Amino acid sequence: MMTDADAREGEIALDVPPLADDAGIAFIGHIASSWKNRSECPRNIRQARERGGWSRLCVAAPFRPALNGLAVGQPIVVLYWLGEARRDLIMQRPRHRETATGTFNLRSPVRPNPIGLAVTTIRSLDALEGVLEIDPLDCVDGTALLDIKPWLESIDLPHGFTPAG
Amino acid sequence: MMTDADAREGEIALDVPPLADDAGIAFIGHIASSWKNRSECPRNIRQARERGGWSRLCVAAPFRPALNGLAVGQPIVVLYWLGEARRDLIMQRPRHRETATGTFNLRSPVRPNPIGLAVTTIRSLDALEGVLEIDPLDCVDGTALLDIKPWLESIDLPHGFTPAG
Repeated sequence: MMTDADAREGEIALDVPPLADDAGIAFIGHIASSWKNRSECPRNIRQARERGGWSRLCVAAPFRPALNGLAVGQPIVVLYWLGEARRDLIMQRPRHRETATGTFNLRSPVRPNPIGLAVTTIRSLDALEGVLEIDPLDCVDGTALLDIKPWLESIDLPHGFTPAG
Repeated sequence: MMTDADAREGEIALDVPPLADDAGIAFIGHIASSWKNRSECPRNIRQARERGGWSRLCVAAPFRPALNGLAVGQPIVVLYWLGEARRDLIMQRPRHRETATGTFNLRSPVRPNPIGLAVTTIRSLDALEGVLEIDPLDCVDGTALLDIKPWLESIDLPHGFTPAG
């Protein structure tokens, strides 16, 4: 845990950490990646794409039949568990920001439920071994995997979205 | 639980449901909506948008400061908990499909971790009361809320994405 001395100006922590026993989740595998520790890990997906490196979803044996139908080139949403992050900060000031802002306006892993979310693309797929090579993510080797969903243009864009530029 | 007699052709269930005690999650509020029960609830976000109705995120008091910085018109990602869904099906055949397919290739709530994900837009915002009106979602009134994240064009589109049509 951070001590008060570590807090940055404008940050607010809950008096008690959020109760984390409303429901339970299961790890379905892990994410293997070229980033072996947090210090070398890119801070966001854009950096991960720019710096190269690799990421791979490794699905545990019982769940591998659930990969049926997924295909190389398909965009997917990956949910993962950032279990080392503190969960009690509701206002926070990341290093790249001048002022604090609300946790729900940030993609920081520090949040009541440290569920990471990434949109990526399947580059190769071995359903038997449960291994999917994907466009690189910003998470360290060994991160626990929670879910894989197909990304669908019909529902996963904001209503009325048109690309910038 | 479904009995074997309810299974549709091609469906596969795990011998045991996935262990759900790898980590714990906290409910940060709930989703209020015009769909009061499952029978009237739209089956996906596209249907929800077409049929009208409304959805509203209700954030519990301790977490409301975490809304700081969010703004009307901003696209967000909402994560929610579909706790009534069974969690053991790894191959399934939704009513609209001819054949069974893998759970990770479906957006069905039936999955090892029944975390729903929706991209939507903030239509009005009362940070003091913790209420955000949003473009309608396909979940019933009272669904537990897990997280709100800003949707970011720079990371939440598949790499190289160009819109269809």
